[in-house]
Amino acid sequence: MRMVLDLIIIGAGPAGITASVYAARKKMNFLVITKDVGGQAAWSSDVENYPGYQFVTGPELVAKLQEHMQKYGIQMKENEEVIELEKKDKVIYIKTTKAGYEAKTAIIATGKKAKEIGVSGEKEYKNKGVAYCVTCDGPLFAGKDVAVIGGGNSALDAAIQMMNIANKVYLINITDDFTGDSVMQEKIKNSPKVRILRNARVESITGEKFVKGINIDTRGRKEYLEVKGVFIEIGLMPNSWFAKDLDKNERGEIKVNCANETNVPGIFAAGDVTSVPEKQIVIAAGDGAKAALGAFRYLARLK
Amino acid sequence: MRMVLDLIIIGAGPAGITASVYAARKKMNFLVITKDVGGQAAWSSDVENYPGYQFVTGPELVAKLQEHMQKYGIQMKENEEVIELEKKDKVIYIKTTKAGYEAKTAIIATGKKAKEIGVSGEKEYKNKGVAYCVTCDGPLFAGKDVAVIGGGNSALDAAIQMMNIANKVYLINITDDFTGDSVMQEKIKNSPKVRILRNARVESITGEKFVKGINIDTRGRKEYLEVKGVFIEIGLMPNSWFAKDLDKNERGEIKVNCANETNVPGIFAAGDVTSVPEKQIVIAAGDGAKAALGAFRYLARLK
Repeated sequence: MRMVLDLIIIGAGPAGITASVYAARKKMNFLVITKDVGGQAAWSSDVENYPGYQFVTGPELVAKLQEHMQKYGIQMKENEEVIELEKKDKVIYIKTTKAGYEAKTAIIATGKKAKEIGVSGEKEYKNKGVAYCVTCDGPLFAGKDVAVIGGGNSALDAAIQMMNIANKVYLINITDDFTGDSVMQEKIKNSPKVRILRNARVESITGEKFVKGINIDTRGRKEYLEVKGVFIEIGLMPNSWFAKDLDKNERGEIKVNCANETNVPGIFAAGDVTSVPEKQIVIAAGDGAKAALGAFRYLARLK
Repeated sequence: MRMVLDLIIIGAGPAGITASVYAARKKMNFLVITKDVGGQAAWSSDVENYPGYQFVTGPELVAKLQEHMQKYGIQMKENEEVIELEKKDKVIYIKTTKAGYEAKTAIIATGKKAKEIGVSGEKEYKNKGVAYCVTCDGPLFAGKDVAVIGGGNSALDAAIQMMNIANKVYLINITDDFTGDSVMQEKIKNSPKVRILRNARVESITGEKFVKGINIDTRGRKEYLEVKGVFIEIGLMPNSWFAKDLDKNERGEIKVNCANETNVPGIFAAGDVTSVPEKQIVIAAGDGAKAALGAFRYLARLK
């Protein structure tokens, strides 16, 4: 007979890691299952708004969070992806790519992954010039011309990173407005390396073996830009597909109330995978703590 | 004519400081008004559950948060207490012990203060043996016998601090159960210096010039404990009295929704002053970020 754990935490970004530290302090019998450690935070170049750190890179912050986990000797199954999650009677059954687990409560903190733009050439040239993570792939384009697609914080972050690496950066935004931080917008405006294209839509990505350029439509005006790299930073999709019984919003985000409870009692969610509007490291961490304390109280009521 | 600011943040604990960092990054025209810096966190001895710091004292963490604020050159009015807050038409009028201010939005992050136990001798011997802050006053009782009243995390924290300072610590809890972290409970159980009294009610605090002892009733059994210090750690009261038009719950906490909005549009609240059930540094910080981003979006809609 398999042991039914108190709690399974799925994901180990800022939300999952914080939840695990709180669960450990409450001496819960639990496990963390995750594909990778750090989540989106691991791919951020500069984090300037995590309180307590004036300036820290994403990987540095993740390392700090991980140290915190290790201090408590938290059990973690890495490189393991959850493919099914279902609650029957009072038990949550979790199936992964490697095994099966049972628990009385679960916290889903699986975050998001990059959205595709859906134009011709995108799939064809993926990893051949088309990329979704500047921190990972930026250095490959040192001294070359690149395009960054998007207008939010992650696009601005990508443009700033590439300003320091590439020869020229085209920042291509489908609307007139950038939604990212003003501080970042100014850095970009002050750089002679960046050309900003507003109201511009990518029509296709072209090349031979690797990307050679992109076709742009700016309010009817067509343009071909010669670039070796295309960073697509148009947003993220929640990793929520495996949680079939949970209520989700139109973006596929798991709906939670203020206490990070989902519609299924005993199942909590925290961080970027949820319907909480702000996607910020400190908010994910705070909500991870709420979810863990919520799971603890739920268990106390069960007994 | 006075300038109407974009935002006034009231309080500079973890919630207010985080809100200010987010507001600064959004280039809002704002001001922080606060009685003191750090809030309750400044009085915590050991913080082991703020993600990213395995171990940090409350004052150290507050110093880190403050450095973060200073980096952005945030304008702060210290030693200034808000005594009135009112919204008329579209302007929020704030009166402090020193001046008057006007703003389009406000974030209330004024936290909590210690609750009194309400027994005879408590008021009389305040600062003459009766104390509400171990971090501040603990060292005055080095080598002496003290009592700590309460059963939650702050009482456990107080008992642990006093274990290292006092000669003997009586930990007096009105119920059978301690609600604080198991990790802390174990530290206390393993200390020969601590005597735990359960189901015990303080009847009075007695003394002459200073405290000499307390009278305890344990399910009808009376006992007199000779102590020089009494630390009252039975909980906290929200600093919300000045915000007369805001909806509050039965504990006086300002009611907020998941987006940290109060019932008055443009007025947000975050941290321990709110109805959010968990009082944790990382949760206050996360909610401070939510409130600032909420205020930013509210202003964008105004324009």
